[in-house]
Amino acid sequence: THKPPVKNHTYSNRGMSLEEELNETNQYYLANNMACVHKKPTPLQIVKVDYPQRSAAVIREAYFKQPATTDYNGVYKGKYIDFEAKETQNKTSFPLQNFHPHQIHHMEQVLGHGGIAFVIIRFAQQDEVYLLEAEHVIAYWNKQMAGERKSIPKREIEEKGHRIETGYHPRIRYLDILDTLYFS
Amino acid sequence: THKPPVKNHTYSNRGMSLEEELNETNQYYLANNMACVHKKPTPLQIVKVDYPQRSAAVIREAYFKQPATTDYNGVYKGKYIDFEAKETQNKTSFPLQNFHPHQIHHMEQVLGHGGIAFVIIRFAQQDEVYLLEAEHVIAYWNKQMAGERKSIPKREIEEKGHRIETGYHPRIRYLDILDTLYFS
Ligand SMILES: [Mg+2]
Ligand SMILES: [Mg+2]
Repeated sequence: THKPPVKNHTYSNRGMSLEEELNETNQYYLANNMACVHKKPTPLQIVKVDYPQRSAAVIREAYFKQPATTDYNGVYKGKYIDFEAKETQNKTSFPLQNFHPHQIHHMEQVLGHGGIAFVIIRFAQQDEVYLLEAEHVIAYWNKQMAGERKSIPKREIEEKGHRIETGYHPRIRYLDILDTLYFS
Repeated sequence: THKPPVKNHTYSNRGMSLEEELNETNQYYLANNMACVHKKPTPLQIVKVDYPQRSAAVIREAYFKQPATTDYNGVYKGKYIDFEAKETQNKTSFPLQNFHPHQIHHMEQVLGHGGIAFVIIRFAQQDEVYLLEAEHVIAYWNKQMAGERKSIPKREIEEKGHRIETGYHPRIRYLDILDTLYFS
């Protein structure tokens, strides 16, 4: 469905989470035959299900589980792509505690099998979105494990990462960055 | 952890669903650095969550949603792979109603973007497992839509598909088939 364009793109995501914007972006990419990328459902431990007569099963007790992987994956130009999206209210750095250890481990495995792995980070206060390749994230993580700083300075994300153009449709044009990095 | 070998492999899956066997297989492939493939969590529509003090959030009302994609995906030798697993009690054919239309559509999209898509079908009565490339599944689906038969004859799956060796560890060696089809 057609929606009116929004003039000021810093307004366009008011109230939309990064996840919602990425879901819209992926729908756009899918509908325009550019890539096939989906968010994985939230993993839940289901404990109790009711099966009422003549209506749908109802889950009555379930718990959130730690995800074993990142949130998004799919195929772009024949390659496997895999990423995690994270938003921070911090202005000057991105806290590494936003990652679960198994997400880092998963990104290492994806790279090991020849896939493309990265994170998409939004600094919400400035409304700036960056793509940072998993190689860098893993390096910062390992340094943290060795006792170094527990966050990635924003200025290093600006240097090593890639600012993603944000707009209205699609909202977060991350394929443009992948084209430059992996397909040119 | 080491488990004793099972002599008769037709006994080894007693009580295990195809999904459980594939999860074990994927764990084996992951642990042995052969591929990185995961089952996607079951998609749920969460309606009500309780946040009790000092304990984990409890989902009190949720419903099963239709999955938008297939169940499994990941990366193998740099390529995107994607598949759906289905089991049937039928002896002579596989009913196409086991697929949701959007799963077929998803497989078409994966192929369109250069990924590898297929289904793994188990005929439970004979304990035979086949890999059938998505191209064939889509062709049968389209023929059904055009008024032809609503199932794939087992003998055609035997001809066009590929019998997967089943064993104890890993249980369903589907990478062997992919090697022959796509990497040789
Ligand atoms: Mg996440
Ligand atoms: Mg399924």
